[in-house]
Amino acid sequence: MIDLTSKDLLAALIAPRSVALIGASASEDKLTARPLTFLRRHGFAGQIFPVNPVRPTVMGLPAFATVGDIPAPVDHAYILLEAGPAVTALEECARAGVKVVSILADGFAEAGEAGRALQDRLAKIARDAGILLIGPNSTGVVATASGFSCTTNAAFRADRLEVGRLAVLSQSGSMIGTILSRGQARGTAFSTLISVGNEAAAGIGELGQLLLNDPGTDGFVLFLETIRDRAALTAFSEGAAALGKPVVAYMIGKSHEGQALSVSHTGALTGSARAVSTFLRDIGIREVEQFETLIDAPRVLSRLRPGAGRPRAVTVVSTTGGGGAMVVDQISARGVPIAGCSAAARADLTAQGMALGHGKLVDVTLAGTNYATMKKVVSTLLADLETGVLLVAIGSSARFNPDLAVRPIVDALAEAGPEAAPLLAFPLPDAPESLALLEAGGIPTFRNVETCAETVALLLDPPRARACTAAPLPDDIAALIAAAAPGVMNEVDSGAVFAALGAARPAQIVLTPAQALPDDLPFDFPVVAKIISADLPHKTEAGAIRINIPDRAALQKAIAQMQVAAEAHHPGYRQDGVLVQQMRRGLGEALIGITRDALVGPVITVGMGGVMTEIYRDTAVRCAPVSLETAREMLTEVKGFALFRGFRGKPLGDLEALAQTVTALSRLALCDLVEEAETNPILIEENGVVLLDALILRGADR
Amino acid sequence: MIDLTSKDLLAALIAPRSVALIGASASEDKLTARPLTFLRRHGFAGQIFPVNPVRPTVMGLPAFATVGDIPAPVDHAYILLEAGPAVTALEECARAGVKVVSILADGFAEAGEAGRALQDRLAKIARDAGILLIGPNSTGVVATASGFSCTTNAAFRADRLEVGRLAVLSQSGSMIGTILSRGQARGTAFSTLISVGNEAAAGIGELGQLLLNDPGTDGFVLFLETIRDRAALTAFSEGAAALGKPVVAYMIGKSHEGQALSVSHTGALTGSARAVSTFLRDIGIREVEQFETLIDAPRVLSRLRPGAGRPRAVTVVSTTGGGGAMVVDQISARGVPIAGCSAAARADLTAQGMALGHGKLVDVTLAGTNYATMKKVVSTLLADLETGVLLVAIGSSARFNPDLAVRPIVDALAEAGPEAAPLLAFPLPDAPESLALLEAGGIPTFRNVETCAETVALLLDPPRARACTAAPLPDDIAALIAAAAPGVMNEVDSGAVFAALGAARPAQIVLTPAQALPDDLPFDFPVVAKIISADLPHKTEAGAIRINIPDRAALQKAIAQMQVAAEAHHPGYRQDGVLVQQMRRGLGEALIGITRDALVGPVITVGMGGVMTEIYRDTAVRCAPVSLETAREMLTEVKGFALFRGFRGKPLGDLEALAQTVTALSRLALCDLVEEAETNPILIEENGVVLLDALILRGADR
Repeated sequence: MIDLTSKDLLAALIAPRSVALIGASASEDKLTARPLTFLRRHGFAGQIFPVNPVRPTVMGLPAFATVGDIPAPVDHAYILLEAGPAVTALEECARAGVKVVSILADGFAEAGEAGRALQDRLAKIARDAGILLIGPNSTGVVATASGFSCTTNAAFRADRLEVGRLAVLSQSGSMIGTILSRGQARGTAFSTLISVGNEAAAGIGELGQLLLNDPGTDGFVLFLETIRDRAALTAFSEGAAALGKPVVAYMIGKSHEGQALSVSHTGALTGSARAVSTFLRDIGIREVEQFETLIDAPRVLSRLRPGAGRPRAVTVVSTTGGGGAMVVDQISARGVPIAGCSAAARADLTAQGMALGHGKLVDVTLAGTNYATMKKVVSTLLADLETGVLLVAIGSSARFNPDLAVRPIVDALAEAGPEAAPLLAFPLPDAPESLALLEAGGIPTFRNVETCAETVALLLDPPRARACTAAPLPDDIAALIAAAAPGVMNEVDSGAVFAALGAARPAQIVLTPAQALPDDLPFDFPVVAKIISADLPHKTEAGAIRINIPDRAALQKAIAQMQVAAEAHHPGYRQDGVLVQQMRRGLGEALIGITRDALVGPVITVGMGGVMTEIYRDTAVRCAPVSLETAREMLTEVKGFALFRGFRGKPLGDLEALAQTVTALSRLALCDLVEEAETNPILIEENGVVLLDALILRGADR
Repeated sequence: MIDLTSKDLLAALIAPRSVALIGASASEDKLTARPLTFLRRHGFAGQIFPVNPVRPTVMGLPAFATVGDIPAPVDHAYILLEAGPAVTALEECARAGVKVVSILADGFAEAGEAGRALQDRLAKIARDAGILLIGPNSTGVVATASGFSCTTNAAFRADRLEVGRLAVLSQSGSMIGTILSRGQARGTAFSTLISVGNEAAAGIGELGQLLLNDPGTDGFVLFLETIRDRAALTAFSEGAAALGKPVVAYMIGKSHEGQALSVSHTGALTGSARAVSTFLRDIGIREVEQFETLIDAPRVLSRLRPGAGRPRAVTVVSTTGGGGAMVVDQISARGVPIAGCSAAARADLTAQGMALGHGKLVDVTLAGTNYATMKKVVSTLLADLETGVLLVAIGSSARFNPDLAVRPIVDALAEAGPEAAPLLAFPLPDAPESLALLEAGGIPTFRNVETCAETVALLLDPPRARACTAAPLPDDIAALIAAAAPGVMNEVDSGAVFAALGAARPAQIVLTPAQALPDDLPFDFPVVAKIISADLPHKTEAGAIRINIPDRAALQKAIAQMQVAAEAHHPGYRQDGVLVQQMRRGLGEALIGITRDALVGPVITVGMGGVMTEIYRDTAVRCAPVSLETAREMLTEVKGFALFRGFRGKPLGDLEALAQTVTALSRLALCDLVEEAETNPILIEENGVVLLDALILRGADR
C-alpha cells in the first residue's frame, strides 16, 4: 500500500529533486522531446536525466542507457516509450527505487484483451515496488510552483506558467492543456495539472488524496470520462470537504453517443448518467453542466462561502435593465431565488435620492452609472444582512470606462467589513480592463451569463455529502438470500425477504404443485392468483396472473387456465406452486428497484408504478442504502406522487410508509449476493403500503 | 403609412446626409454629448447639426435653437431631451420634414398610465407626419459603413468600428454595446445596430423590413424582451426567409423572475415561454438558448447552408479523444446525429496508413497531429457525399502550433470544390492565433463547446416557417357563436359549435328544466348525466356530473341528487337543463384547448387528458389554426400518446381522428369572439375520438 499522507511522496510528485525522461528524443520537434523542453522553459530546478540508449547526449544533457545507470536517486520518471518497452522500463524503475512514474504510451486497457493484460502487469509491478504509477496513456504531470512541467501536452509550450491554487486531475490528457490555456485567458492559474490516463494503479482518488496535503492547493478541477475507483474518489472527496477545499467536476459520456465514445476511448465503462450524477453529489463533488463553469467555479468556491445567517438568494444590481434581466433569467432558471433590495436598504438609498427600479432587479439605470451612486448602492447591499450573494451586472460602461463602472464596486468591497456578503461581478460587454480591475480587487468575474448563473447556484447550494450507510443486514435475512439458488428468486421467496425487512405483503397462501385448493381461504374474496415460478419473472406476459377473482369456483378455473397459458408461454417451465393473495385496492401504485451500476455500485430507484413510469421516467435515484430522510427527499422528486398529496381533493396516500419501505429495502444493497431487487407495483393506501409483487435476482456465489 | 421598401428612407436611417442632435450637451462628459463624439470618431461624413437653445456652439459646431432653424434638410434626428420636451421636439421634427427620428428618453409606456398617454402622442405625431420613429427609450442607431454612430451607448467609444454584414435589432439599449464588443472580440462585425426601445411606432418588424433592402446586410441578430407587433415581425421574417437571410433571436423574460422584470422594465407584456417559442419558430426565426450563440450563429448561418443531398448529420474529426467526445456529447444532446467516417472514406484513409479510431468520433489521435494526415483526412471528408457537416475539434496543438494544427484544415478547404461539405472548427484550448487563421481561411470558429453544438444544430435544422392559415370559419358556425351571450357557453351550445366543425360528440338528449325524463332513451344504458349551466364550468367539483348510470331509476335519482349538489355548490345557479349522454369507454383521454396569448395571439394546446396532464405538463403547443400535418406533428410530441401507439400490446387508438379534430377545432382561433375553447376529455377510441366535454368562452362584442 502506498501511503497517501506521505510528504515525501507528495514532493516526488510535484517537486521532485530529480526526474528521468525515459525515451526522451534528441530531436526537438518530436513529441517525446517536449518534456525536457518544457521543464527547461519553466525553470525546473531539479536534476533532469534523459534515458536514451542510442545517444550519448540528449539536447545537451548526458543520456543514460537505462534508468538504473543514473548515478543519483530518481524521484520521478516519465516513460515515453511504446507500450511493450514501457513495461520493461517500469521494471527498471522498480529496481532503481523510483518513487513516482508516469507512462505516456497508449495501447493498454483501451486496446482490448492483450492491452488489458499488459496494463495488469504495470499495476502489479507498481504495487509490488510501492511505486506511485500515473497512467498509462498519461500526457504527464505539471506542478507550476516548482516549474515541473513534465508533459507532452503542446499547450505547455507557453512562455510562462502562472502559479495558481487549483489542482487539475483529468482523465483526458489533452484537456489539461485546454484547461490551462482557458484559465490563463481569464486569470485563473493552477497549482498542479495531472493527466491520470487509464488509472492502472493510482487514479484521481489517490492523487487527489495525496494533493490534499499540498498547502498550495485550495480546490480541485476534475475532467471525468468515467469512474474507476469509487472508494478512492469518496475518500478524496471526504478529505477535501473536511478541509473546505471544493471539488468541481465536468463529466463527458452522458449522451448516448458520448457514452459509446467513452468506451472506445479509454476502455471505460460508462454507467447511467443519473446514477453517476447522484453518486458525485452524494460524495460531495459538484458537477457542472457548462464547460466554462469548470474553469470559473472552482476559484470562486475556494474563495467565497455563503455568509452565515444570510439567506439563500441573490441580489442583482445593474445599470442595464436588459442585461440585468438576462442574468436574473439564467439564475432563476437554476432554481435560485432572486431577492430585491431589502426594505431597509431601499429606504436608506431612496432617501439619498437614488432610483432603484420597481422589480426584483436593483436597476440603478443609466442615470445611476456614476461613482457615487454605484459605490453607495454596493456598500449598502454588501452590509445588508438580507443580501445572500450580491452580483453586479455591469453594462456598456464596463467596456471603456472602468473607473466609472468598476472602481466604485472595488472600493466598496475594500471598505466593507469581513462580514460583507459574497460579491461577484459580470460585465455584459467584452471588457478586459474591467475584468482585470475587478479580479485585482478580489471580485470574481465571469465571461458568460450561463457560467455566472451556474456558479452562483453552486455557491448557494453547497453539496451535502451523504453517507450511504445503514445498519448491517441481519444474519437471518442474509441467510434467506444465501439459501436461494443463483438466478431469479420466485415471488414467494423474494417476498419473504422483503417481509423480513419489514415491508407489508398482502395476506396470502401458497399451494404447492401437489396441493389441492382448500375449501376455505384465511381471507375474503376477491383474490389474486399467480403461478410461482422463477422461470416467469413477467407474469402478465406469461398469463400467469389473474386478478379480482370473485369466488372459489372462479379461482379453481383461473388456476387451471393459468397453467395452460404458462406452459404455452414457456414450455417446460418449473412451477413452484400457486400463490393466492387477498385482492387489495389502493389509491395508486409505485415501484422500488435496486440495481448495481457498473460505475457507481448499488443504486435505488423509486417511481410511479404502471405505464406512466415507462413513459415519463418519473423517478428518483440515489446510491443505496438510503436513510429515512433521504427516502423522504426522493419521494418529493417524483412528480406523480402529487396524486397522493391531496391532489384535487383525492385522499392522502401514506407516503411516510412508502419512505420507510424504501429505506428498509435499500439495505439489500449491503448484500453482495443481491444483483437486483424490485417490487412493482407497491400499492399506496391511506394507511400503509403493500408490496403486490416481489423479485430478487440472486447472483452467483463468489 | 410608411413605405418600408423606400430606398430614401433606408438611406435616412443608415446613411443620412444630415443629422440633428436635439439636446446635445456641450460638456463632453455628459451622456447627451456622446452621439456627437462618436459620430466624429467613426468618420460620419454627413452634416451634423446640434440643437441647443442655450449655446451658440456645441463642441465647435454652430448650435440651433430648434430643429426648424436648421437651414438645410434634415434626414435624421436624435432627440436627447427628457420625456416632456421630447414630445415637443418631435412635433418640431414633423414640421421640419425630418424623415427618421429616434428618442432617448424613458418615462413613457414603461412608467405607467401617464407615460403610456405620452407615448401614444409620440406615435400619433409620427404617424401623421410619416416619420419613421425609433424609441422612445432608444440608445440610438449605428450604421458602420457610413460611420453613423448616432448613439449614447458607451461601448461605441471604441477606437474603430469594423464594418460587418449582420444587423442587430435590440429591445434593450444596453445590449447593442454588449453585442458589438463581444462580436469584435471574435471577429464578428455588424452593418447596423439599432436600439428599438419601446417601439411606440416602428419596431423590430418594420425596421427589419426596411433593412431587408440593405445590400450590406446578410442576416439579423435580435435581442428580445417581448413581442409587440406580431404581424410586422412575421412580414419581416418572411421577407428575410425569401432572401435567404437568417434571423436569430435571444429572448429574455422566460423564467418567472425574468418575466416579472420584463414587465417592469419596458412596459412589455410577456406571454408564456412556450407560446412565444412556438410563434418564433412558426414564423421562421431561430431562437437560441446560449447568449454566445446569438453572437456566433448568425454569421455561420448567413454563410453556410446544409449541402444539397447531404445527410442531416455531423462528422467530428479530432486529435483529442476527450475533447472530441465532449463536442460529440453536446451535439448529440441537441438531437443531431453523429456520423462516423463513411465506409468509402475509411477504406481510402486506412489504405494510406491512417488510424481513425473505432467509434463515431474520427479520432486521428496525437499520432495524426501532422500536416499531411490532417489535410488528407479533412480533404477526404469534405469531398465525401456522406458528410453532412464537418466539424474539426482541435486539441492542444492549436494553442501554439497553428501551422501544424490549423494550416492543413485551411488548405484542405481552399483546395476543395464548391460542393464541399460545410466546414466548422472548434479549438479546445484558448488559441487566438488559430482562431484568426481559421477565420481568415473562411472557416467559422467557436469559443464554447455549447455554442458550437447549438450552432451546428441550427445549421442542420433550418426553421420551417409555417403559415397559420385555414379556410375561413363558415358563416353558420360564426353565427352560432355570435348568437350566444358573452361569457361561458354551456356544454350543449359549445358542443354544437364543435359538432358543426365536424367533431364527434356522444349520442345525447337534452332535457329542458321543465321537461320530465322520457320513458325511453334513444340510446342504451349506461349513461352519463350532467347539469347544463354556464355557471358550472367545472362540473366534477360542482357535483353536476354522474357517470356510469345503469338504468332509468338510477338516472332519475342521479338528476335529483345533482340538482341538490349544484345548488349547494353555487346557490342560485342558472340551470339550462340536463344533458344525458351515452356512456363511452375508450382507450384513454386527451384534451384540446385554444387560448389567446397576450403576445402571440391564438394558441392551440393538445395533451394527455386527466390528472397526468396537470402533473407532467405533457402537451404540444402551436399558434392556431393548424393544418392536419401540423396537428399530426403535435401528436408525436405528446409522450403519453405512446399509450395509443401499441404500447405493450395495447390496442391502437385513432390518433388520425384526433389530429383531424385538432385541425377542425383550431379554426375557432379565426373567430375573434372565441376567447378560449376547450374539450377535456376527448375519449380516444379504436375508431374515432369523441368529445366528452365542450367549453367555449365567448368574448364581449366589440
